Amino acid sequence: MARSRVGIWLIGARGGVAATTIVGLVALRRGLVDTVGLVSELPQFADLGLTTWDNIVIGGHEIRNVTLYDAAQQLVDVSRALDPRLVAAAKEDLDAIDANIKDGTLLNVGAKIAGLAKNELREKTETPRQAISRIQADISAFAKQHELSDVIVINVSSTEPPFDDSKLPTSWNELAPLLESGDCHLPASSLYGAAALELGFPYVNFTPSVGASIPALCDLAEQKKTCHMGHDGKTGETLLKSTLAPMFAHRNLEVMSWVGHNIFGNMDAVVLDDPENKKTKATSKDRLLGQIFGYHPQTLVTIERIDSMGDWKTAWDHIHFRGFLGTPMVMQFIWQGADSLLAAPLVIDLARFAELAHRRGETGLLTSLACFFKSPHGTGENDFSKQFSMLEAWAKS
Amino acid sequence: MARSRVGIWLIGARGGVAATTIVGLVALRRGLVDTVGLVSELPQFADLGLTTWDNIVIGGHEIRNVTLYDAAQQLVDVSRALDPRLVAAAKEDLDAIDANIKDGTLLNVGAKIAGLAKNELREKTETPRQAISRIQADISAFAKQHELSDVIVINVSSTEPPFDDSKLPTSWNELAPLLESGDCHLPASSLYGAAALELGFPYVNFTPSVGASIPALCDLAEQKKTCHMGHDGKTGETLLKSTLAPMFAHRNLEVMSWVGHNIFGNMDAVVLDDPENKKTKATSKDRLLGQIFGYHPQTLVTIERIDSMGDWKTAWDHIHFRGFLGTPMVMQFIWQGADSLLAAPLVIDLARFAELAHRRGETGLLTSLACFFKSPHGTGENDFSKQFSMLEAWAKS
Amino acid sequence: MARSRVGIWLIGARGGVAATTIVGLVALRRGLVDTVGLVSELPQFADLGLTTWDNIVIGGHEIRNVTLYDAAQQLVDVSRALDPRLVAAAKEDLDAIDANIKDGTLLNVGAKIAGLAKNELREKTETPRQAISRIQADISAFAKQHELSDVIVINVSSTEPPFDDSKLPTSWNELAPLLESGDCHLPASSLYGAAALELGFPYVNFTPSVGASIPALCDLAEQKKTCHMGHDGKTGETLLKSTLAPMFAHRNLEVMSWVGHNIFGNMDAVVLDDPENKKTKATSKDRLLGQIFGYHPQTLVTIERIDSMGDWKTAWDHIHFRGFLGTPMVMQFIWQGADSLLAAPLVIDLARFAELAHRRGETGLLTSLACFFKSPHGTGENDFSKQFSMLEAWAKS
Amino acid sequence: MARSRVGIWLIGARGGVAATTIVGLVALRRGLVDTVGLVSELPQFADLGLTTWDNIVIGGHEIRNVTLYDAAQQLVDVSRALDPRLVAAAKEDLDAIDANIKDGTLLNVGAKIAGLAKNELREKTETPRQAISRIQADISAFAKQHELSDVIVINVSSTEPPFDDSKLPTSWNELAPLLESGDCHLPASSLYGAAALELGFPYVNFTPSVGASIPALCDLAEQKKTCHMGHDGKTGETLLKSTLAPMFAHRNLEVMSWVGHNIFGNMDAVVLDDPENKKTKATSKDRLLGQIFGYHPQTLVTIERIDSMGDWKTAWDHIHFRGFLGTPMVMQFIWQGADSLLAAPLVIDLARFAELAHRRGETGLLTSLACFFKSPHGTGENDFSKQFSMLEAWAKS
Repeated sequence: MARSRVGIWLIGARGGVAATTIVGLVALRRGLVDTVGLVSELPQFADLGLTTWDNIVIGGHEIRNVTLYDAAQQLVDVSRALDPRLVAAAKEDLDAIDANIKDGTLLNVGAKIAGLAKNELREKTETPRQAISRIQADISAFAKQHELSDVIVINVSSTEPPFDDSKLPTSWNELAPLLESGDCHLPASSLYGAAALELGFPYVNFTPSVGASIPALCDLAEQKKTCHMGHDGKTGETLLKSTLAPMFAHRNLEVMSWVGHNIFGNMDAVVLDDPENKKTKATSKDRLLGQIFGYHPQTLVTIERIDSMGDWKTAWDHIHFRGFLGTPMVMQFIWQGADSLLAAPLVIDLARFAELAHRRGETGLLTSLACFFKSPHGTGENDFSKQFSMLEAWAKS
Repeated sequence: MARSRVGIWLIGARGGVAATTIVGLVALRRGLVDTVGLVSELPQFADLGLTTWDNIVIGGHEIRNVTLYDAAQQLVDVSRALDPRLVAAAKEDLDAIDANIKDGTLLNVGAKIAGLAKNELREKTETPRQAISRIQADISAFAKQHELSDVIVINVSSTEPPFDDSKLPTSWNELAPLLESGDCHLPASSLYGAAALELGFPYVNFTPSVGASIPALCDLAEQKKTCHMGHDGKTGETLLKSTLAPMFAHRNLEVMSWVGHNIFGNMDAVVLDDPENKKTKATSKDRLLGQIFGYHPQTLVTIERIDSMGDWKTAWDHIHFRGFLGTPMVMQFIWQGADSLLAAPLVIDLARFAELAHRRGETGLLTSLACFFKSPHGTGENDFSKQFSMLEAWAKS
Repeated sequence: MARSRVGIWLIGARGGVAATTIVGLVALRRGLVDTVGLVSELPQFADLGLTTWDNIVIGGHEIRNVTLYDAAQQLVDVSRALDPRLVAAAKEDLDAIDANIKDGTLLNVGAKIAGLAKNELREKTETPRQAISRIQADISAFAKQHELSDVIVINVSSTEPPFDDSKLPTSWNELAPLLESGDCHLPASSLYGAAALELGFPYVNFTPSVGASIPALCDLAEQKKTCHMGHDGKTGETLLKSTLAPMFAHRNLEVMSWVGHNIFGNMDAVVLDDPENKKTKATSKDRLLGQIFGYHPQTLVTIERIDSMGDWKTAWDHIHFRGFLGTPMVMQFIWQGADSLLAAPLVIDLARFAELAHRRGETGLLTSLACFFKSPHGTGENDFSKQFSMLEAWAKS
Repeated sequence: MARSRVGIWLIGARGGVAATTIVGLVALRRGLVDTVGLVSELPQFADLGLTTWDNIVIGGHEIRNVTLYDAAQQLVDVSRALDPRLVAAAKEDLDAIDANIKDGTLLNVGAKIAGLAKNELREKTETPRQAISRIQADISAFAKQHELSDVIVINVSSTEPPFDDSKLPTSWNELAPLLESGDCHLPASSLYGAAALELGFPYVNFTPSVGASIPALCDLAEQKKTCHMGHDGKTGETLLKSTLAPMFAHRNLEVMSWVGHNIFGNMDAVVLDDPENKKTKATSKDRLLGQIFGYHPQTLVTIERIDSMGDWKTAWDHIHFRGFLGTPMVMQFIWQGADSLLAAPLVIDLARFAELAHRRGETGLLTSLACFFKSPHGTGENDFSKQFSMLEAWAKS
């Protein structure tokens, strides 16, 4: 029996993460690369019946005026992060996939992101509901055209400014009417979430933006018997924090201060260069230490745009801790990773795991996927090793 | 009801680790310090009824001509690792404990260690059995004098040269007769182990030397219904390896090479400066990666004596890994820890946990204590997080 | 013939730098330490007839309510930066020197510094001229009491907020009358400078504050035939920048970005934690690269207060450069230095060199001392090696 | 008037350094790259009349069975160090230059290097004089065919094992006859040197091998009125040592220990993996510190083959120094450079400067070029800044 085909719908479909994801899926399908970096390809997940490269179809929304090939080629020429041979081999496929990418919405994305959009989008006016309907039409057409059994919507777009959701109604039935007017300032990441969940499709928020984390959208997911998860993909410094902090805790070493400085230069950096957008990010990176330690060491996290770095995100962390008899000691680490190359395989993993969960009939927050996120919804577990055990346990269940 | 008193008997009792352990125990008893660095003081072990500072009595064997106070003061003046106020406050106690420290044995410790011993010891000749009997007499007298319910013997002496145990008989009954003559080249660390186990006392090997790991001594432990564990305390670089390597494995990132350079300058460094002794150590530090990854990245571990470092052990590790689509990335860490201050609390933890295990009637290898060792006997688990869960599970059992 | 005695008058006389300077001078006089760290003790300056430890008398101004001994002991207990034996040995001398330290002025020091002052000082009101006169009375009494041939006034106090001097008159004769009223907002560092220069004493500004760098005070120095120099002692990260940047220039390697993150936790850090004061500092640290390269790489300098660090200033610098054929490469350095211990010997050096220059009859800016400063006045030379050659040439002249 | 054409003759002509040099020269001639990384293109050397890209012709000797294009492409695919677009653009030129590359000699290169050679070379037997004559015939034919005014012979081949030259005669007239028999074990690097100098061509030794540094060859250079220089190109860690060590000296900071660990994985690493060859290299890297400081800190230099690194040489240096009042402090640096890309521009610089020196009639050792070498012959100056000033002074002379 032929496997049914599955769609991955990327919000921010021509950004660095999306372009890398797509080059990767093309290369995997063509057998040009091995599966290194893909969690879902570890032996312990081999028997789950995850969807295969041949059965994945890609589409998405984008607001900028670029092509997938140009986005990928920039990771070759500027960042020296992607193998040029892979991008060359994928060019034809990238051009074809470009046809599946539709105009996104700029509703409440903030000035910085709006400033990157193509002109016709900036002139568009629509209510949240109109935006949602347009988004849904795009996704439904995609699903129909490609005869897809499911579409996993994944947000890999730029980080939005902080949004205060505390005054929103907590049920979908109360929130839905507010979307008819522009007064409801729900950010785009949440509108995409609402669109996906209302269609019954899973939604994964790989960014620190609000997405589907608000109660009313959790409610919607349950109503529609679909699943979702977020937020903020854990790719580098925070992955190390969630790995190393438990070690200090287990050894009863008192972390006095933990300083982390991050520099990088891709489009994400350009957006985070706006203090508003940066606020959303830094909060997400700095939260877990207190939860792991049970006390609050002095912490400092900076994330700065340094253009020459391109996609290479370098983090220097300085951990100052008290050992036995009060002796101060230091651990430092330097992480030099290509941001998009770290994120892309996790996007593919999340799509595969979310598709399986949906197929299995799971609804609501997929807390078993906590290990993929800086701030996993629905669980207080921040120890990476324990988060990974949660994933393994889920796979066995 | 008054708690019974417990002895800690240290092999290498005036070395840096022992001196720090003793200063620490004095400071804890006097309430001069908090319990940072002590695993056994974590909340999850609070209800186990571990022995308290007031009930611990300290003794040991030593081969060099120093005093405890001088050894501790060197960590203040040369290494700037110990707080001078603590050593000053502990001086009187240190001088008193010096009386509990007896002459050790130089049998098969290798030329490097023998060269550090005081003259009268170097002139002594004794058979292994004579040495064991002498050691036992010292420990028994100590137990009697201080009315101890148990004595935990812990080896914190310098690393011996490698010893090939493959031709030894595997039962104690066959090995014991060989100890009557000098032809059995069992190293001192094993003789101390035999002495302790034969008396029914627990033995913990905190060094990479052979100790009680050979089958005939495991047999002896079972015969005497006592327990033991080893080997090589996990304090710094290897602790980080066993914490970080699982993260790379869980993310399916392929570690191509892992290089670790260690420098330090204490007495341990002096002994390891001998290529024979160093061999024992480097093997212990480099073994776990293959076990965690299931494949063998190129590895390099050096450990070099740099006198100016004193007790400060600095490790630089360079981890070169392949990410998604083959993109090479790098993680580096620098660990700057005071060796004796990292080891000493674990020595105390091990004494307390081993005493509890013995009280509970456990025999043989204490594999639940794997998280404390670079090369834990009796288990193939090298993931620090999982090793710690083993300890927590044991505590709950 | 007996050498004449020389005074060193420290502004900020009980801060960390001053306390270390004073402990050091006491220890040098008593022969407790060698001369490591003192530039003026290098062989090439041996024949200059610099003033000797026996002939130095110390006094100064301070605004906080502490003792020299407490300030020094804090560097022992909190920061573990000073050898406890030295502070113990110097205690008696420190207590005696305390008597030579007088109340400073809070005029235009900014809210952050004023907030640290003792109460009686905060309530004081005086015009700039009154402050200058009071300062001069203190210094003159000190010179008379100790029969000093010269007094070198050195500012080692906390960094003031930026001050716009562009509207001030450029001659002393025009500026002097403005000091009669409070409308002239000249910061304290400049008032101390004016006080010293008007008395004919040399003035050295070791801080990034304005000090005597304004034209009217340069004019005053010439009128009084005395000398001065500044500003901002070059002790750590900037010293390395001025050493490494020329290497990149000489090899025609194009520095694309130079990022420097500094963390520390002493009183200087507390003051710099105020964004106003920090502005003055960051500018001083980030200026020289453009001057050395002749083009402007992207630069980023942060300096953050991390309390656990105490006096230990750690800098991580990430230098991203283009090599041949455009290949990007990276150099990183980590500098772990005790701030006060790096600064103090330079304060002593500057006092000795400035005293010699004054004795030789030199007036105006002492540009030969450029190698000691982050932003040396009166010269565009920022290459440390060339600056040092300037000092050697001056010594030979 | 048309400029005369100049030959660059590379020993090791298809190694990584040579391949990069040649790709670079092609790219420069075609205007595909800017001149970053080339010292000779700094403004201060603009008026010297150095030979231009159009006038350079390349040839050389090689012992392995590869093509220039393959060697260059390996730097693209394996090391990701060279821009793929440049190698693609240079392919045709590289193929043409391959015709100018002749078989080198294996005389006394040691077993490791000989093991890399193509079979027909390994079977060849020739006396040193026969080898020299063959080499000279190749170079002369090249000069004639391309109508070259001069040929600069530069050794960029792998490091030979150490060679004891202390028993060799010190005059060329005495050494020359010994070359007739195989008993004179002069290594290949010296035979190439003899060949070049005897033809009157300049010889530059970019490797730590012996080359033309022995007295008899210095004598030959003077006889033939030609010039030469060496040895061991200063590209990374040692460049930093010669830049940073003077800073510590100028500040009278006492370096207690300087540890440097180097890892890399190119062909040079393969050869240095042989302990014999490594000995030659480590000596060259570790010599200068004592000369700069005037005392001998404890030093340690390792250089290890880690295959995954390819052409990327990473050095971690840990500098432990005593500051004022004996306070120990630490500087560490990490250098991540592509070895061939750092070396290649210096090869071009040396060819241009040596050609100019020869044209100017200079004979013997070109000590003005000291800044390019780890162990510059004929001068004790190891301070990079001063070495660079020597080059600038020579340029102005």
